[in-house]
Amino acid sequence: MRALLYNKVLRYEAEYPTPGVPEGYALVRVLKAGVCNTDLELVKGYMGFSGVLGHEFVGVVEGGEFDGQRVAGEINLACGECSTCRAGMPTQCPNRKTLGIDRHDGAFADYLTLPVENLHPLPDSVSDDAATFVEPLAAALQTLHLTHVSPHDRVALIGTGKLGLLTAQVIALTGCDLTAISRHDRQIDLLRGWGIDTASLGEIEARSADIVVDCTGNEQGFAEALKLVRPRGVIHLKSTYHGLPKADLTRAVVDEVQIHTSRCGPFDAAIRLMAKGVVDVESLIDARYPLEESMEAMAKASERGVLKVLLEIG
Amino acid sequence: MRALLYNKVLRYEAEYPTPGVPEGYALVRVLKAGVCNTDLELVKGYMGFSGVLGHEFVGVVEGGEFDGQRVAGEINLACGECSTCRAGMPTQCPNRKTLGIDRHDGAFADYLTLPVENLHPLPDSVSDDAATFVEPLAAALQTLHLTHVSPHDRVALIGTGKLGLLTAQVIALTGCDLTAISRHDRQIDLLRGWGIDTASLGEIEARSADIVVDCTGNEQGFAEALKLVRPRGVIHLKSTYHGLPKADLTRAVVDEVQIHTSRCGPFDAAIRLMAKGVVDVESLIDARYPLEESMEAMAKASERGVLKVLLEIG
Repeated sequence: MRALLYNKVLRYEAEYPTPGVPEGYALVRVLKAGVCNTDLELVKGYMGFSGVLGHEFVGVVEGGEFDGQRVAGEINLACGECSTCRAGMPTQCPNRKTLGIDRHDGAFADYLTLPVENLHPLPDSVSDDAATFVEPLAAALQTLHLTHVSPHDRVALIGTGKLGLLTAQVIALTGCDLTAISRHDRQIDLLRGWGIDTASLGEIEARSADIVVDCTGNEQGFAEALKLVRPRGVIHLKSTYHGLPKADLTRAVVDEVQIHTSRCGPFDAAIRLMAKGVVDVESLIDARYPLEESMEAMAKASERGVLKVLLEIG
Repeated sequence: MRALLYNKVLRYEAEYPTPGVPEGYALVRVLKAGVCNTDLELVKGYMGFSGVLGHEFVGVVEGGEFDGQRVAGEINLACGECSTCRAGMPTQCPNRKTLGIDRHDGAFADYLTLPVENLHPLPDSVSDDAATFVEPLAAALQTLHLTHVSPHDRVALIGTGKLGLLTAQVIALTGCDLTAISRHDRQIDLLRGWGIDTASLGEIEARSADIVVDCTGNEQGFAEALKLVRPRGVIHLKSTYHGLPKADLTRAVVDEVQIHTSRCGPFDAAIRLMAKGVVDVESLIDARYPLEESMEAMAKASERGVLKVLLEIG
C-alpha cells in the first residue's frame, strides 16, 4: 500500500506492507486524513516516533463487526487492564500506544488498524471532510470535560490556530461571554462569522477573565494568560509546549489561579455536535493533496497562516 | 516604641513612632510574633518593602470595640469596595495593602494597627505561643478551600518546612492517605509523632498520588510533583518561587494534571482547630528572642533546619 513514513527522515513509499490485523482489531481503508501540528512536531523528533504518520482520519472498515461502515477512530490504544484503564481513563493508560504518534502506524496510508472498541461509526450527516475533524474536535471538547465553563463566565481564548478555532467554537456553545484574541485577519473573519467576539491582547482588561484558554503552546501565551485571568480564575492549557517553558508560578500562587489542562477527548460528543450542525469545521480546510503528494502536504501545513491540510487517500 | 525596620537594610530601632489609628482601625499591643520565610525574603528585596516587618502575631487591643481582647489579625487590608472584594475575595483585593509585607507597618514592634474587621478574638484555650501560628495555619487551611481533598485520596506532600508541617497536619485531618516526603530527622520525628506517614522521594511510586502538595517553592519540587501525580491528578502549589521557574507544562498537559494554588486562608477555621486541640503548632518553636534582639532572631530563622523563631514582645 501507499504510505507516508517518518524514520529520522520523511519519505513517501508506494509499496509499504499492508498491516496485519490482530485479534480484536479492525482493518480500516482510509478515505481522508488531516495534517495536525503534532505531525509537524513528530518530524522534528517529538516522541522519537518512527512509522506511518497521521491520526486524524475517516475510513471504511473492511471485515468484522463494522464491515463496510464509515468510521472515525480514537487514537489511544489502551491496555484495558491497568488501574488507569479500570478507573475509566483509557486515554491516560500508561501502557498505551498511539495511532501515528507512538509505536502504532498511522493514517497517512491506504490502510490502518485499530482495536474495534476505538471505532465510532459516523452518521450520514457528517461528511468525509468533516469527519477528519472528529479527533481534534474531541480534543477541543476535552476542555469542557476538565474545566467547568459556566454560562456566567467571562472567557478569553489565546492562540487561534486550528485547535484554538475548534476550541473557541465549543466553548461558545456554553453561552459564556467568550472573546477570542487574534491578530490574524483570516481567523478574525472566521470567528466573527461564527458569532464569536474577537479582540487584540491590549483590548482585554488585566485580571478580567474568569477563565483563559491558552491554545498557543508557548511561554509568552502562558504569561499573557496570567495577566488576563482574575484572582482565583482558571487558566486552561490546551497545547503542549516546545522545550521547558519558564512559568511565573509565584504569580499563580499569589493570585490563587488554577491551571487546568486537557488532551484527547470524547468522540461521541464531537460526532453529535457535528451531526447537529453547530460546529463549522469545513471552513478550516485550506488545501487538499493526494497521498502521493503527502510530502508537499506536510510542507504546506507548516507554512505560516495555513490552517487544515487534508490528504485525499481512498 | 521599639521596632524592627527594613529599608534596604535591616535595623532595630528603640524609638520608632507609635502608629496613628485611622477611623475604623484598632491599635494592637503586640505580645508575640513569629518569623516567617516571607520575612526572610522581604529583607532580600521581595515586594520592595520598607517599614516594620512581621505579620504573624498575637496582641491585645487597646481601645475601641475590642478593647482589652486578645486577638490574631488578618494581614490583608482590603478596600472593601472593588469587584474582587464584593465577590467575597478580600484577600485578593487588587488595592490591598498587607501587614508587614506591602505598605503597612507590621508586627515586629510594640504596636500595630489593623482594620477592626481584620481582628479575630481568641479563646482562652489558644495560648499566646499557639496564637502566633493562626496566620500560617490559616494559609495551610486555604489548601483545603481551593482543592477538594477526599478521604479516598492518596496524597503526597513535598517540602516539610514550617508551612509544610502545618499543611500536612490539616490535610491529615481529612482522613486521606497522606505521605509526607522528608529527609530531615527532626521533621520526620514530628510528622510520625502526629501519626503522619513519611517516606523518601524514591519510596513513592511514580504517578501514584491523586494529589501532590508542593510546599518546596523551588522548580525541583514542582518537577518531583509532576512525577508523583497520577494522570488527571492535582498538584497544589503552597509556596511562592524564587525567580521564574522552568516548568514542564507539556507533561502537565499530556497527563491532564490540574495545578491548584493557594495563599492566605480562613482565620476562624484555624482558631477552631487550635481550640479543638487537633493541630500541634508549639512543637515547631525552636527559639525565642526579645524584640531588642530581633536582628539575631532573623539570623537564627534563616539558619538551615531551624523551624519557628518567636519574638517575645509585650
